[in-house]
Amino acid sequence: MYKIVFMRHGESTWNLDNRFTGWTDVDLTEKGIAEARQAGKILKEAGFTFDLAYTSVLKRAIRTLWLTLDEMDLMWIPVEHDWRLNERHYGALQGLNKAETAAKYGDEQVLVWRRSYDTPPMPLEPNDPRTSYNDPRYAQLKKEQIPLTECLKDTVARVMPAWDEEIAPAIRAGKQILISAHGNSLRALIKSLDGISDADIVGLNIPNGQPLVYELDADLKPIKSYYLGDQEAIAAAMKAVASQGKSK
Amino acid sequence: MYKIVFMRHGESTWNLDNRFTGWTDVDLTEKGIAEARQAGKILKEAGFTFDLAYTSVLKRAIRTLWLTLDEMDLMWIPVEHDWRLNERHYGALQGLNKAETAAKYGDEQVLVWRRSYDTPPMPLEPNDPRTSYNDPRYAQLKKEQIPLTECLKDTVARVMPAWDEEIAPAIRAGKQILISAHGNSLRALIKSLDGISDADIVGLNIPNGQPLVYELDADLKPIKSYYLGDQEAIAAAMKAVASQGKSK
Repeated sequence: MYKIVFMRHGESTWNLDNRFTGWTDVDLTEKGIAEARQAGKILKEAGFTFDLAYTSVLKRAIRTLWLTLDEMDLMWIPVEHDWRLNERHYGALQGLNKAETAAKYGDEQVLVWRRSYDTPPMPLEPNDPRTSYNDPRYAQLKKEQIPLTECLKDTVARVMPAWDEEIAPAIRAGKQILISAHGNSLRALIKSLDGISDADIVGLNIPNGQPLVYELDADLKPIKSYYLGDQEAIAAAMKAVASQGKSK
Repeated sequence: MYKIVFMRHGESTWNLDNRFTGWTDVDLTEKGIAEARQAGKILKEAGFTFDLAYTSVLKRAIRTLWLTLDEMDLMWIPVEHDWRLNERHYGALQGLNKAETAAKYGDEQVLVWRRSYDTPPMPLEPNDPRTSYNDPRYAQLKKEQIPLTECLKDTVARVMPAWDEEIAPAIRAGKQILISAHGNSLRALIKSLDGISDADIVGLNIPNGQPLVYELDADLKPIKSYYLGDQEAIAAAMKAVASQGKSK
């Protein structure tokens, strides 16, 4: 039996501002920093240790990982930064306030953009300064690999090769792995792991900064999964994520 | 022509206490944190960027690297943690105060232990709790690879394979590299790069937290080398390192 721990980054400045973030490289808030440190303490107290970590190339996930590893006295373990673990690209919505967008387009349209499996938001124009084309962290990618928008289905399509090619073989090799990533890149992973349908994935909300443990069988099928830490706080945080896209 | 930047970690708690540190995993002081952030600012202002970093498995070097990369907005670049870049192992001196040790054994004996090329300090006993045998970060090593003491010659013998096998090929592949390491692992590297004799290496002192640039030719031979930043402060810091092992 294997175990792996997933963690969504702590609260970011744009979580706090209730903005669509996507590939925008915003940092953690003070609360997010505290959440990441707390996650490290919880993992340590629960007896977890890791010998390999994966994260995206976005600083809110990297800083969350750093703070967690610091608390666990594991700063020295290997860390793989993989762009395929990035948050879902939010297209032309990146930077917009979720409630204002809902007031303009309606709660239902925003829920479709946020949670529909296969309807992406409007794409960025290729000449929009918000594109990632000139960002050095994507310099090794082909232009067509750099999205201008994504639905969750698109995110699944880029996240799962990272799982299949990198993470799953490392689990099978006995590595104890921590993944620090994003709400939607983790939803993409969990949809696939748990075999959640395209319709039901809308109901899955992942709170910031809470370690989520998956116990896997020899075929890497989930046996059970659970959050560590204060269960009431986690339930409240999941509910808050679900209501972010409402106009009021 | 290639460039590579070396950096000794910022001030550690045992630099401040004037203790022999070696493989002991002490953290940075507040001053050390500020030095590391300042190094990042200096590198950024001087127009440097990196796409690969190497560090040891000791947190004072890793945290220095993290703070430098954070200031440069480069948290996402790949980082290799290599035990071969660790500080020289200081044997049975680890934990002892340098001035007290000098008062006990004499300034000259301490200078021999600190700076002689091929005379190691007394080794740790294999059952000493200060050995690294049970530290998970060395779990992949053979027991005979984990030192109980080292002279600088021993440190050269383990650092240079990391250079030859990992770092030099990466430089030749065009990578822009930052190395965050330790006083003696960097002295070992520089001795070899600059062809400094066993006798003359005693005079080389590396200050904490100052970016040291090496420009290399096509054969990776140094063309020139220089510290970035405030040259007077660097000269004073180098002098302070040289006098650490005196009894008063």
